[in-house]
Amino acid sequence: MKHTYSSKLLEDAVEEFATLPGIGKKTALRLVLHLLKQDDRDVERFGNTILRIKQEIITCRVCHNISDTEVCHICADRYRDKSTICVVESIRDVMSIENTQQYSGVYHVLGGIISPMDGIGPADLTLDSLEARVKSGECREVILALSTTMEGDTTNFYIYRRLKEYPVTISTLARGVAIGDDLEYADEVTLGRSILNRTSFEDTFKKMGG
Amino acid sequence: MKHTYSSKLLEDAVEEFATLPGIGKKTALRLVLHLLKQDDRDVERFGNTILRIKQEIITCRVCHNISDTEVCHICADRYRDKSTICVVESIRDVMSIENTQQYSGVYHVLGGIISPMDGIGPADLTLDSLEARVKSGECREVILALSTTMEGDTTNFYIYRRLKEYPVTISTLARGVAIGDDLEYADEVTLGRSILNRTSFEDTFKKMGG
Repeated sequence: MKHTYSSKLLEDAVEEFATLPGIGKKTALRLVLHLLKQDDRDVERFGNTILRIKQEIITCRVCHNISDTEVCHICADRYRDKSTICVVESIRDVMSIENTQQYSGVYHVLGGIISPMDGIGPADLTLDSLEARVKSGECREVILALSTTMEGDTTNFYIYRRLKEYPVTISTLARGVAIGDDLEYADEVTLGRSILNRTSFEDTFKKMGG
Repeated sequence: MKHTYSSKLLEDAVEEFATLPGIGKKTALRLVLHLLKQDDRDVERFGNTILRIKQEIITCRVCHNISDTEVCHICADRYRDKSTICVVESIRDVMSIENTQQYSGVYHVLGGIISPMDGIGPADLTLDSLEARVKSGECREVILALSTTMEGDTTNFYIYRRLKEYPVTISTLARGVAIGDDLEYADEVTLGRSILNRTSFEDTFKKMGG
């Protein structure tokens, strides 16, 4: 639907919002009209927050996670196990794993995965910095937690080749039928993998604190 | 899902986006991470546009439509028919009607409809200003284009009572079965109304330029 805007500034604002992923012109207009109805102070805070995120948010120089400080609070936490590094694609994955409250090691955010189709090669990722961390000697295990796509597998393999000379264990996330899911609805690849990589019942039970 | 943010500023930005209608925390996070990946200049423009909409967008002093100037471009357009005023609830309705390219009169944006449930009374709307426009004498027809809800009907009736002393025709939008819709799927109220308010075929044909 074509829109006839009565204000150039309104149109600009709608165009800006419509550049966001998943936001079309119609939704963008609704958002802008909503903002127009809010208090001056609230809208000012909104605008200023957007200005600040680019100016002030930095990435942790150790793990490349988003941070307000030079070293993020996970890397700076002395209770976290620095000998285990979980390699993830993005900071969203860090959040997901943190939410499980099951992981006490540290992270390494790659900033993407190797994807020739999108023009992303190893040099675009934080791989040198990962190797440097492993080389420094403190690390004993690297957990590869990338997505199970072709690009994820390629990246896993690339990292494996770069790190295999170092005295570290390289592991990947367990893949299998999700807890609560019926076997009959699981796809064959997942079900097949979960049979191949079956785990000792006693071990699992113990890990869960049983 | 609870989120564990690694940056207070990131969290603030997500919270800000999550105040927008229809945007949850998860979408808000996706939007903020998207912005973080953009060029500094683009994000700066985005933030500044938001700051400007509240500071610079004003409402037309004649029709209360959103405008960059004191009198909006519709009211200022000397080719528009100033004797016909279409009363709408919001500026979105102005856009919808403008998009039809079938209307050459002017508008009056009420800024809402009378809704005791939401605490909106006649005094919260631009009704005094509407009456003043009608009183001034230039207007010959007022088209009520409010929604067909109980609140819309109440508002229509209220406006009718206020304006009926003036020498103006008060009309409402034609309601009926939408063009292209099958009769069997139309609701009874709409279908009933479209039979009651049936129009001369010849007249309609002529209005369409036939």
